[in-house]
Formats: sequence, C-alpha cells, structure tokens
Amino acid sequence: MPELPAQEPLVKEIPPKGADLSAWYTAVCLKAELVSYAPVRGCVVLRPYGFGLWENLQRELDARFKATGHENAYFPLLIPESLLIREAEHVEGFAPEVAWVTEGGQEKLEERLAIRPTSEAIIGVMYAKWIQSHRDLPVLINQWANVVRWEKATRPFLRTMEFLWQEGHTAHATAEEAREETERMLDVYRDFAENVAAVPVYAGLKSASERFPGAVETYSIEALMPDGKALQSATSHYLGQNFSRAYDITFSDTDQQMKHVYTTSWGMSWRMLGAMIMVHGDDRGLRVPPKMAPIEAVIVPIVKGDETAPLEKARELAAGLRAEGFRVRVDDRDRSPGFKYSDWEMRGVPLRIEIGPRDLQSGSVTLVRRDKAKGEEDSKVSAAFDALGTTLRTQLEAVQASLYAQAKLFLESHTFAVNDRTVFFERCKDRSGMIDIPWCKRADCEAILKNQTSATTRVMRELQQPGAVCTACGEPAVVNAYFAQSY
Amino acid sequence: MPELPAQEPLVKEIPPKGADLSAWYTAVCLKAELVSYAPVRGCVVLRPYGFGLWENLQRELDARFKATGHENAYFPLLIPESLLIREAEHVEGFAPEVAWVTEGGQEKLEERLAIRPTSEAIIGVMYAKWIQSHRDLPVLINQWANVVRWEKATRPFLRTMEFLWQEGHTAHATAEEAREETERMLDVYRDFAENVAAVPVYAGLKSASERFPGAVETYSIEALMPDGKALQSATSHYLGQNFSRAYDITFSDTDQQMKHVYTTSWGMSWRMLGAMIMVHGDDRGLRVPPKMAPIEAVIVPIVKGDETAPLEKARELAAGLRAEGFRVRVDDRDRSPGFKYSDWEMRGVPLRIEIGPRDLQSGSVTLVRRDKAKGEEDSKVSAAFDALGTTLRTQLEAVQASLYAQAKLFLESHTFAVNDRTVFFERCKDRSGMIDIPWCKRADCEAILKNQTSATTRVMRELQQPGAVCTACGEPAVVNAYFAQSY
Repeated sequence: MPELPAQEPLVKEIPPKGADLSAWYTAVCLKAELVSYAPVRGCVVLRPYGFGLWENLQRELDARFKATGHENAYFPLLIPESLLIREAEHVEGFAPEVAWVTEGGQEKLEERLAIRPTSEAIIGVMYAKWIQSHRDLPVLINQWANVVRWEKATRPFLRTMEFLWQEGHTAHATAEEAREETERMLDVYRDFAENVAAVPVYAGLKSASERFPGAVETYSIEALMPDGKALQSATSHYLGQNFSRAYDITFSDTDQQMKHVYTTSWGMSWRMLGAMIMVHGDDRGLRVPPKMAPIEAVIVPIVKGDETAPLEKARELAAGLRAEGFRVRVDDRDRSPGFKYSDWEMRGVPLRIEIGPRDLQSGSVTLVRRDKAKGEEDSKVSAAFDALGTTLRTQLEAVQASLYAQAKLFLESHTFAVNDRTVFFERCKDRSGMIDIPWCKRADCEAILKNQTSATTRVMRELQQPGAVCTACGEPAVVNAYFAQSY
Repeated sequence: MPELPAQEPLVKEIPPKGADLSAWYTAVCLKAELVSYAPVRGCVVLRPYGFGLWENLQRELDARFKATGHENAYFPLLIPESLLIREAEHVEGFAPEVAWVTEGGQEKLEERLAIRPTSEAIIGVMYAKWIQSHRDLPVLINQWANVVRWEKATRPFLRTMEFLWQEGHTAHATAEEAREETERMLDVYRDFAENVAAVPVYAGLKSASERFPGAVETYSIEALMPDGKALQSATSHYLGQNFSRAYDITFSDTDQQMKHVYTTSWGMSWRMLGAMIMVHGDDRGLRVPPKMAPIEAVIVPIVKGDETAPLEKARELAAGLRAEGFRVRVDDRDRSPGFKYSDWEMRGVPLRIEIGPRDLQSGSVTLVRRDKAKGEEDSKVSAAFDALGTTLRTQLEAVQASLYAQAKLFLESHTFAVNDRTVFFERCKDRSGMIDIPWCKRADCEAILKNQTSATTRVMRELQQPGAVCTACGEPAVVNAYFAQSY
C-alpha cells in the first residue's frame, strides 16, 4: 500500500531563490498551489491555479495552430507493441520509458499495449489509411493529450511520469513543404515563449546527437534558467520519410506515381510552465506574466470594523472590469490585508488593487505591480475609478514587457561568445550560461567538449565569424553553437 | 500483429436511416469523417470534424461549469490498485472493466496500476490531503480527461474502450449543499442537451438498481433515439459520505468537530455526440445544430469556365462573416456544385450559401437550410450582401429552434402514459418509446417488468395522479417512472 500522502514536502516558507534554486522551485510550486504530489510515483496533480496557467497556454497556442491552418483531433492512448516497434530508431529511443498494459477486463492480453509516450506510431497507421492522393495533402493535425514516460523522480512540470502536452503531426507531398512546416512551428513556439510566457529563447537546429529518435532534423527553443542551465522548452522535428516508410504512408502524386509522404511532428508540454516559473519568480514567490495569469488583478478591500463600503465598491469595480474582459478576483476573505498581499504575491498575480475608505472619497485606487521590488519607483500607480480599465490595460502591458526585458537582460548577460578552448573549459567550470562557440560540427569534437564539461550543444546557428575555427579541434568551423548545462 | 486497417466498414453510400438505424449510424459517423477505427480493439480516432463537435461541447459546457463556480484541474491517469479498492461497491462495479499496467520502465511492478475508469479514488485521496477546515469548503473541481473501460465492441461515441469526458468532483460541509450541487449540475446537463445540442431529455432521479457504484443517489438525463430506445446522456451522483469515509476526507467544522465531507460527482462524455447524431440525422447524413456546428455555413461559389468573380466574392463575404464571429468555410475545391452540396449535407452544415454570376449582379445570395427537406417551404432564403450577417444569425437561430422542435415532437409523440399492466406489456412489444407508469418503487416490481420486457427504469418523477396504483403489483404507487429499452 503506497504511503499517503506521497513524498510531498511540507512548505511553511519558501527559501530564497538565489540560495538553492531547486528547493525554491519545489516550494513555490507547492505553496502557490500549482501542483500537489499524487500517491503514484512520479505523478503530480495540476491544481486549479496551475491548471489556469495551462488553460492560458492552451488558448494562446491553440489559436496560433489554427491561424496556421491546423485542426485538432484525438488518437487512442493505447498502442499495440507491434505497431510501436516499426520505426527502429524510434522504438529504441522510447522502449525503455514505456508503461505496458498487459491485463484488461480480467484477462491477460495476447499482445502488450503501450501507453503512448508520443503518438507517431498510431498516427502513422491512421495517416496510411486516410491519405491516398495528393488531393489529401497536406494533413495538418494537432492533438492535446496526456502521455506517459516511465520516470521515478518527481519534479513538478520538469520531470513527471505522466504529463500534458500537445503534439502536432503533419504530412506533406514534398520535403520542402515539410521542412517549411517544421520551421514555421518552431517559430510559433518562439513567438509563444517570448510574447506570451515572456521567456526569451534561442531557437534553432539541434546537433545530430540531440535528435528525436527517428527524426532527420530536430529544432528546439532553449531558455536559460537562473542557475545558468538551459531548459529545452519545445521541439519541432522534420521526420523526412522515416515514418512514412515505416508505416507505409503513400500517395498518388500529380504525375500518377505512388510516393511516400514527408512528415513532421512538434510538441510543447507543461514543461514550458516550469521554465516560466523559474525565469520570473523571486523570493516572494511566482511572478506570472499577465498573458499567462489566471488572475490578472486581485482587488483587496481594506476594511476596518463593520465597514462594507470598500468591499461593495471592490465588487462593483470587479464587475465592470470583467465586463471589459479582464480576469479579476475580489479577495473578500476574513483575513488581514497584509496576509492577502503576501498570499497573492506568492501566486504571482501581476497587479494588486488596494481600495480603502480614503480611496472611496478620492475616487481612485492604488495599483501595485508585482514585477517591481517593494519601494521601487513606479511600483505603485494611482488610477481614477472611471479610468480603471484603461490604466489596468496599460499596466498589464507594462508588467508583461518588464518581465520579458528582465529575462532578456539575464539571457544576454549570461551568453558568452568564446572561441578559445581554454576559455571554454574555464567558463564551463562556472556552469553558468550559454556559451556560444564556433564548431566544426563533427560529433567527436562535440563529445570531447561534453565529456570534459557535461555541457551539451543546445542549438546551432550560422557561423558568426568567417574563418573562425572549431573550439575543440582548431579545424575550420562550420557553425556557431550554444553549449550549456541543461535540465 | 493486428490487422490494418482495423474492422472499419467501407462506406460508399449511407443506407436509409429508417431501415436500419445502427447501419445508418455507423455509416454516417465514418462518411462524415467524424471518426475512424483505430488498430486497437474498441478504440476510435476522433477526426478533425468530429473533434470540432467535441470542442463546441467543451466550450459550452466549460462556460456553464465556470459560471456555477467550478474550476478545472488535472489528476493522474494511473491509480494504484490498493487505492481503487477502498470503496467496496465502487470497485465491485468497475473492477471487471479495468485495464491494468503491470510493467513500466522494463520492470515488473510490485503493485498493479489501473488506468482510470473514473477518478473518484484518486481525487478522494487528494481531497483528504487538501481539505482540513470548513474554510476549505466547498471544493468545486472539474476535470476534462480520457478514461478507459475494457470493451471489445466498437460503436463510435456509444461504446468504445477509451473515451473522452468530463468529470466533476465536489466536496461540501453538509448533505444539503451536496444534494443541491447534484441537482444543479443535472440541470446544467439538461440545459446543455436541450439548448445547445437541441436534444430534448427527461431529467430526474434513477432507481436504486440503476445507481452509479458507490452513490447514494444517481440522477440522469435521458434522450430518446429514433428506434425508440433511451440513451442516458449524462449523470450526476450524490455520493453522501460513502467516498469521504472510504478515503477519509474530514474537516474541522465551525463547531470544532471533525466531520466527513459530503461529495458529488457528475459526468458527460462524447456519448452525448452520439445522441445528437442519431436524433437529428436524416437519409442525407448529419444535421448538426448550429451551436454545435464546427462550420455554421459553407459558401459554395458556382463557377463556369475561368470565371473568378464568384469565388472572389465568396472569400470577401467569408472574411466579413468571420470578423462578425461566424464559423464559415468557402469550398474552393475543383469539384462540381452538386458534389459539394451532397458533401456538406452529409456533414450536416446548417446553412449553405450559393453564390453564382447572377447573384453578383443582384447583390444577394441564396441560403439553403439543412433542417428542411428538399423543396420544403422556407428551405431557401435570399439575403442581400450587406445584410448577410443579420440574415445568417436569424437563420441559424431558426435552424437551431427547428431541430429542437422536431426532436421534441418526436419525444412527446413517443412518450406513452400507461397505467395498465397488459397495456404496458403490449407497448413494450413495440420496443418503441418512453412508457410513463405509476410505480410503487419496489425493486421486485421493477424486476418483474424488466424481466418480461427488457425495459428498464430511466428516470422517476413525482406521482402524476394521486391514488394511482403500481403497474406491476397494483399496490399504491409512489412515483411515476419512465420505462424504456435503452442503449
């Protein structure tokens, strides 16, 4: 019988973020009631406030998928073993992580069923059935789903056995179209990360050693965490004809020839939430970018004795703001204002609106911004009742921009252009930041650098300096690559 | 190795609905591309057009849940066996249907993990952890999720091994509050079924023999299918303290006493889509109520030779309608108008807008309504370009109302008030409709009626005629109950 509750640490206060990022992170995820540990090893429950973050991610990302021509569908959770193993590299990559159903309806099954670790296999089988002609192409489908990859450790959002994600799967008549799709979706992820989650990223092609099992090319977006480690936040794969050959997805082209389609797949999971939490949080708790915030502004009435006017006014203002489309909550709990301030700061609500008896007379309220330190200039703004919506909109935009700017500054000040091997090894001792080096693109050079430092290639980009040499071997470099420790 | 593709019937034409409802139903689900059979026994894929129906159900239902104070969360897919078996009746009801994970990460597990058939068990454990005080109550949570109940047959939406649903789980300080919640959510389901899916239902309490395993009371909404069988379309359960005792969910009440909470659970699955399809469809295919329609109107340009003006105008009109919030598609495929008409009729799009060269001159278009028979009065409506949005809104409302009215008429004309045992048995021979009888509420009378006719109690309501006697035993009746054959 499993112990109940599972190993969820009891959190009274969150430790300082700078001292131990990992302890701070777990504490804030629990204390802000984003997650709770489940009585199943490796699993967490996404609590309502955490699910509110996921709903905003879903809404924003889904709108971008639809704007680029994709539709949603739903494929089965269980995949027969014989189907999963058709693409050799794919199964080799995923087999060690699979959870197997071997009994159902009180009978032993003849064939084991895998709980999907990802859906290329089952989707490949269906595409083979649906696609006959060039008229059926492209197929542009996304799925929002849960997946399971066997895992005993539990780190909320970053490492769990079951997680929520979306996986896009597309099929195209030509390699060129499929490559375009792969890059288009990478850019959708970059746009979402930067403009919604306010997390700046490096987006680009990964090295061969870091590819998705079965892919021809893997692209990713990479964010930088406060401890100097990179966090891969979404991936987009060009699969070429690897899966269409394994699953026999063919079409009759305009020239009447039967050909195999070219496929892509791309995914973002709730891991993105982990990146957002780590990048923006501070010693007081979460700082949620307004576009991701389940509550954009909380109104705290300051009531003395039996006064009801501030609370009534708070409700009236909240109703007006809701009608204008804002996500607002009135905190009418029987608690002190100080308790409420700390509580909503912990949950990272971007704006707090304080309203007391004096504000009723002046016809204005005070807005307090969560992106600023206490006492910092502009951390408090006054807004007249009749201009509250306008001020709120402006201030939410300002908070969104300021969180992004702070994170961008951190990324830039922790990215180091290096072209000397000794300096590279020195830098890696810090384990801190993205190290941008010229590289010959040979796997053995990558291996040398990795083995001595445990830093890995995150993404590559064009060679920045013509004539630069590889940091590892001194031969002519072909690309620049960001190396970093990673999650 | 499973046969590929699985036993999906090839559909060239759909058979008449009246001749064989079951054959019609399967054919229309496949031909309209709502679903496709997966290579896993008992599973279907929800294709983009079918998923569009599900998205509309989700949006409408989710808004109603939030308006009644609920929040979404996500709980783990896998439940350790020792937790599942804590509520005795519950496990007895579900154990035969469970799929078990016994291997993970290349190891045999010490304890089997159930794939959730429903989530009372895992949620009960979490609520025990979260709820301490009366201040923590009520807890009002909903989950959108996939569940698995072992099943070998496959009937799209109606009977599948894995299905999508939502399950609400709430905890309250008093029995009264929990009972109110149970009835409130039943009414949300009734409202959704009638006003969104345009499916009239009987809503009420079920008899003891038809209760959810572990519930004190089960309520449901029951729709009537064209073959005269009832289809249970959603359920709402008052669980009393059965689960709070099994999972030890206690709170310190205002009087400082520790008490067990009262819980409810309620769910609607994609089965509701099956009801909607059967109720409204006709020999030409689906008829989708506008509020559920992925495409509210399709614009078919009628082009001769190299003309491009109608297509251009179609695109311009579509852009304008989309800006007004309508879900519109332009069919620009290289196919004849006749082919397109049939194709969209099959998919049940509520309105078709035809636009040809003559319409360009007259500055108006023809709208064709899918709820009317061909040639029926009012089946075609003309709309000026500049009044298209207004006309569309009016006509969509008219189609929604007319589909509901047609279904309501069918339900009413197939509901039979009976108070004589012989007449009851005669009626049951028809296997056609809801038979409304006075009943003493004793299980043996229910069993007698069921055993002889295979009709079961669907829902009960107040006794309609004071002094009426039970149709089975002739003793004084206590309630009226709808009996019917059922899915």
